[in-house]
Amino acid sequence: MLNTATRLPSNGSYRPSAPTAIVMLNLGGPQTTDAVGTYLERMFLDRELIPLPFQERLGKFIARRRTPKIQRKYKQIGGGSPIYAWTQRQGKGMVQWLDRLSPETAPHKFYVAFRYADPTTADALKRMYADGVKRAIAFTQYPQWSCSTTGASLNELWRELLRLGLRDAFAWSVIDRWPTHSAFVDAMAKRVRDGLEQFAPDERESVLLLFSAHSLPLSVIERGDAYPQEVAATVQAVMERLNFSNEFLLAYQSDIKPFRWLGPSTERVIRDLGARKRRNVLVIPIAFTSDHIETLHEIDIEFAELAHEAGIVNFRRAPALNDDPLFVRALAEIAAEHLGSRRLHSSQYKLRCPGCQNAMCRTLLNPATDALHSHAGHPATALRPDAASHHA
Amino acid sequence: MLNTATRLPSNGSYRPSAPTAIVMLNLGGPQTTDAVGTYLERMFLDRELIPLPFQERLGKFIARRRTPKIQRKYKQIGGGSPIYAWTQRQGKGMVQWLDRLSPETAPHKFYVAFRYADPTTADALKRMYADGVKRAIAFTQYPQWSCSTTGASLNELWRELLRLGLRDAFAWSVIDRWPTHSAFVDAMAKRVRDGLEQFAPDERESVLLLFSAHSLPLSVIERGDAYPQEVAATVQAVMERLNFSNEFLLAYQSDIKPFRWLGPSTERVIRDLGARKRRNVLVIPIAFTSDHIETLHEIDIEFAELAHEAGIVNFRRAPALNDDPLFVRALAEIAAEHLGSRRLHSSQYKLRCPGCQNAMCRTLLNPATDALHSHAGHPATALRPDAASHHA
Repeated sequence: MLNTATRLPSNGSYRPSAPTAIVMLNLGGPQTTDAVGTYLERMFLDRELIPLPFQERLGKFIARRRTPKIQRKYKQIGGGSPIYAWTQRQGKGMVQWLDRLSPETAPHKFYVAFRYADPTTADALKRMYADGVKRAIAFTQYPQWSCSTTGASLNELWRELLRLGLRDAFAWSVIDRWPTHSAFVDAMAKRVRDGLEQFAPDERESVLLLFSAHSLPLSVIERGDAYPQEVAATVQAVMERLNFSNEFLLAYQSDIKPFRWLGPSTERVIRDLGARKRRNVLVIPIAFTSDHIETLHEIDIEFAELAHEAGIVNFRRAPALNDDPLFVRALAEIAAEHLGSRRLHSSQYKLRCPGCQNAMCRTLLNPATDALHSHAGHPATALRPDAASHHA
Repeated sequence: MLNTATRLPSNGSYRPSAPTAIVMLNLGGPQTTDAVGTYLERMFLDRELIPLPFQERLGKFIARRRTPKIQRKYKQIGGGSPIYAWTQRQGKGMVQWLDRLSPETAPHKFYVAFRYADPTTADALKRMYADGVKRAIAFTQYPQWSCSTTGASLNELWRELLRLGLRDAFAWSVIDRWPTHSAFVDAMAKRVRDGLEQFAPDERESVLLLFSAHSLPLSVIERGDAYPQEVAATVQAVMERLNFSNEFLLAYQSDIKPFRWLGPSTERVIRDLGARKRRNVLVIPIAFTSDHIETLHEIDIEFAELAHEAGIVNFRRAPALNDDPLFVRALAEIAAEHLGSRRLHSSQYKLRCPGCQNAMCRTLLNPATDALHSHAGHPATALRPDAASHHA
C-alpha cells in the first residue's frame, strides 16, 4: 500500500496528501497595544462570554471605556500579549511529535484560532481551505471545560463554518477537555516544582501552593457549567502527582464587578494569608496554559504588590506551561490519543448545561467518519464519545 | 516478644491490653421522632455550623419551630434516622478487618461520636476512658473536608476533652479526609453500577449520573473551605473508575433560605433536566456514606416527586454505601494505612481556611507519639502529616 503522503491522486498530478488540521482554540490576546481596542470589542460583543442588554451598543461602549486602562497594562508587560508566540511554539512542537506518534494521520498541521484576537477562527478556516484540509480536530487549549471559554470558541467555529460556506469542507472531531490527562498533569507538577525552586531550600516545605483559576459569574455556575468540578480535579491530580508535598488552596481570580463570582477570590485569599503571617506563597495558574495578562500583570504585578503590602515575604508564581517540553509533548499525546480513539469528542461534550438557553451549544458539524481509520476495520458506528482524554 | 494483647503489665495482674480506639465522627440523626427536638436544638446552637445572632435564643427558637415539620419527615421514613444502625454495622465490620490488617495495633474498638445526636462525643469519650483506651484515632466519616462537618466534629472533640478533664487521657491522631482513597472510590463506583442496574438494559447508556452533595453557604466557600474542591475530586475519581461510562453532573442539595448557597442546586438541575426531556436520571449521594434524611426523604420522596412532575420517566438513586462490604473494608484500609503511615493527620489538616475566624480550628490535643510503633524503630520526629489518605 502506498504511503498516504505520496499517493498519486486520480488526476495523475503528484502532490502530498492534505494535512490533518489541529485547530488550536483559545481566547487569544492583543499582540500590540493598538490591537487592544478590537480585542476588547470582540470580547464585550460576545453574548456567550458576557451577555449584556443592548449588547451591540453597550458592549462597544464598555470596550471603548476600558481600552486605555487595559492598554496601560499591556504596556507594562512589554507592549502586547505573548499568547500568539507561545501558541506558535506549542503548535510547532506538537505537530512534530504528532507526526511520529500518529504516522497514519500525518502530516499534521496546526492552525491557531483565537476567539477575540488575530488570527481569528475565520482566518484559520480560510487557511485550512487553501491548504486542502479534509480532516480537522478542534483542540481546545483550555484544559477544563467552560461554556465561557471552550464553549464560546466552538460555537464561533460552527458559526464561522456556516458563514463562510465551509459547512462540508472539513470532517470534524473535537478535543473538548483534558483536565486530568496524565501527561498534562506531569507537566503541571513539573512547573510547580520549578516554582518551588524559587524559594530557599529550608523554606520550601513551608510554601503554600495557591492554585488560581479564572473565576466565573455565579450565574454560569448555577446553570451547571462543568468548570469548577474539572478545575478541582486538575488540582487534585497535580497534588497527587506531587505526593501532597505542600499545603494547597484553590482560589479564583479576575472577577469583574458588579456580578457575584465564584470564590474564594485569589485576591482576598492573598490578603488573608498575609494576615495569618504566611511567609511563602507560590501561585499556580491552573486553568490556562500560556502566559497572558492574568499571569504577567494580575498575578506578577497586582497580586505581588498586594502580597507585599499584606506581609507575605516571598510571593512567587510557577512558570506557565508555555513551551515546556513536557507540555508540548503532552499536547501531542492528547491529540494522538484522540485520533487513535476513533471518538468524536469526550463523553461530556454533548451534555448541555441543565440551565442552557443557547441552542448553538454542543454542535458538531460534519462529524468525521472513520474513513481516515478504515485500515483498522472498525465500522463507522464505532465512533463513540472519547473517554480517554479525561483519564489520568 | 510477647503479643501486645497478652503482655503482662508491670503490676503483675493479667489483662488484655487496652484497645486502639477508632472514633467515628459524624453528624448523627434522631433515632426516634421524640429525639428530633434535641437534635435540631444541638444543630442550631452550633455556631460552627450555623452562626446566628443571639445564637442561644434564636437557635432554640428556630429549632422549636422546625421540629414538627422535621418530625413529619422522619415519620415518613420509618420513624427515625438509620444512621446509628449503619454506623454500628460499619464499625463492627471495620474493626474486624482492622485487627487483621494492623495486628500490631490490635485490638481495635470503635466508638460512635455524633455531633448532634446520641451517642454524643462526650458519651464516646467516657466509654473510652472506662475501657482504658490510651491511643485514639479521630476518624471522620465525611469523605471530604468541610469546616461545617468534620471541622465542627473535631472542634467538639477537643472542647469535650477539656471539659471532661480528659486532655491527657488519650494520645490522638486524626483521619481528617479521604476524598479519593482508592478503596472508597471502588466502593462508590460499585454503588453507581448498582444504581444503574435499576434501569432497563437498553436505557442504561442514556442514564445521566447526577452526583449530589450537601451544599454550603457561599460565605463558607469564600472563607476558603476545601469542600467543593474535594467533592469534585471524588466525582472525577469515581468517573475515572467507571471509565466515563455515562454523562454526569455535580450539583448541591439541601440549601436553606435566606442565604445564598453553592450551586448548581440539585433541585433546579432536576427541573431543568426534565425540561430537556431527559428520561433517565440516577442521583448519587457523594458526600455522605450512610442513608439519612437527605437521601431517604429529600432525594427519594421530594426530588422524586419533583422529577416526576418535571417529566423524568425513570428517576432513581444509587444506594448509599451503608454496610456495603467494599465500603466496610475501605474504612478498615483507610484506618490501617493511617496507623501504618505514622502520621498525625493529612497534609491539609493544619491549614486553617484563609478567612477563618475560629481560633479553635485545626487543634490537635495530646498528639500521639510513635510509642505504639516503636517496634519499627522510627524516631518520634518521623511523625509527619499523612499524605496517604488523599491518594487514589
